[in-house]
Amino acid sequence: MRILIIGASGTIGKEVTKQLEHDHDIIRAGRNGVDITVDITSPDSIKNMYEIVGKVDAVVNASGGAAFSPLTELTPEINEKGIISKLKGQVNLVLLGLNHVNKNGSFTLTTGIMMDDPIPQGASAAMANGGVKAFVKSAAIEMPRGIRINSVSPNAVQESWERLHNYFPGFDAVPAKRVALAFKKSVYGAQTGQNYEVY
Amino acid sequence: MRILIIGASGTIGKEVTKQLEHDHDIIRAGRNGVDITVDITSPDSIKNMYEIVGKVDAVVNASGGAAFSPLTELTPEINEKGIISKLKGQVNLVLLGLNHVNKNGSFTLTTGIMMDDPIPQGASAAMANGGVKAFVKSAAIEMPRGIRINSVSPNAVQESWERLHNYFPGFDAVPAKRVALAFKKSVYGAQTGQNYEVY
Ligand SMILES: NC(=O)c1ccc[n+]([C@@H]2O[C@H](COP(=O)([O-])OP(=O)(O)OC[C@H]3O[C@@H](n4cnc5c(N)ncnc54)[C@H](OP(=O)(O)O)[C@@H]3O)[C@@H](O)[C@H]2O)c1
Ligand SMILES: NC(=O)c1ccc[n+]([C@@H]2O[C@H](COP(=O)([O-])OP(=O)(O)OC[C@H]3O[C@@H](n4cnc5c(N)ncnc54)[C@H](OP(=O)(O)O)[C@@H]3O)[C@@H](O)[C@H]2O)c1
Repeated sequence: MRILIIGASGTIGKEVTKQLEHDHDIIRAGRNGVDITVDITSPDSIKNMYEIVGKVDAVVNASGGAAFSPLTELTPEINEKGIISKLKGQVNLVLLGLNHVNKNGSFTLTTGIMMDDPIPQGASAAMANGGVKAFVKSAAIEMPRGIRINSVSPNAVQESWERLHNYFPGFDAVPAKRVALAFKKSVYGAQTGQNYEVY
Repeated sequence: MRILIIGASGTIGKEVTKQLEHDHDIIRAGRNGVDITVDITSPDSIKNMYEIVGKVDAVVNASGGAAFSPLTELTPEINEKGIISKLKGQVNLVLLGLNHVNKNGSFTLTTGIMMDDPIPQGASAAMANGGVKAFVKSAAIEMPRGIRINSVSPNAVQESWERLHNYFPGFDAVPAKRVALAFKKSVYGAQTGQNYEVY
């Protein structure tokens, strides 16, 4: 398979790449992507990426962010980061990529545990995650040409624990490799409309 | 209680108003609101509404839309309606309204069955609904001064069935009155972080 991985250089993206690179032709994308640059917050940048990349069998996204902010300090402007990046960035990878994915191909997006097991300062990220999860479930029933779509919902990962442990007290961080396996399940498998919880 | 109802003139908002108006002081809002005008797609309009309205005990929103579109025709631009209205419009009612709600007050937002029981053309609305549901669940744990927040997720309602039946084959539409009871439960009750499914 020809697999486009957006966020391939990231903590999770690196492990996903490891799981897939032995058997597949990987295209590594990101703002500083090794094979192609893309900024998912810009629809034009996404269109440009797909035009250059051409047809692929799978699109995997392990990028996208949202601001952490106490709810009482969260403004419409601060909330915009999660809207533009984690939510619209991921949805637009699908809407603008549909014609670039081969028959029976797949999309795999990223959500996260914060929508299910909320933490202080997490409302904006939870919102974006919940939007992506519901989009995936609904879009799955309308995907053309047998294309599938799933998302992976990681717990905090051990590799990010130093940065994250103050936000996630009592969470049992998982190895990024376990998260990467869920991406592999989505790419190789036959399920669609799923949100794989790696909790 | 002093209760601000945005979308009070709508199919669902009218029934919510009926459930609450005997015992409470109702402020009816909408783009053509009887008591105050507001367009939830504009943060400035929301701010202006709250400044004029002052303090309330409950904010109920029964407004907000998203475009219906086949997935293969859904563009980032068409998807924007659901983002600006149903998702950001509702989230911003909370973010900009927090300081205008009295101690132990509440917010009640609207989601919808399409995120749980998807239909063709529904991916954008599902996305917005899922975002609101997850925001509510997460924001609930950080609300100041005992303020609660819930959402109500209506099935298609009988009063809208003529307009909706082609989109929702096999759905068992519910009376808007049943939906309004869930809003009442949210306003009078003690629960928070819930999404009341009226299916
Ligand atoms: N780490 C965790 O514990 C954890 C837990 C739950 C969920 N998640 C989610 O998993 C995803 C990846 O997390 P991570 O920790 O692996 O992130 P990370 O280490 O910060 O890596 C992010 C990756 O995405 C790329 N990227 C960032 N912004 C981009 C943009 N606007 N357009 C295109 N590419 C962009 C980065 O490369 P460039 O800098 O070159 O663009 C990098 O390859 C995020 O959605 C995160 O919310 C992470
Ligand atoms: N009807 C259903 O079967 C059904 C099922 C599931 C979910 N829902 C959801 O429930 C909510 C209400 O639905 P409905 O059928 O009752 O809608 P509706 O009959 O079209 O009424 C919408 C109400 O919201 C107001 N409104 C519309 N846009 C607004 C804006 N930008 N800013 C402020 N107010 C605005 C309208 O008044 P103005 O025109 O004066 O602004 C009206 O009072 C929507 O979120 C809908 O998605 C409805």
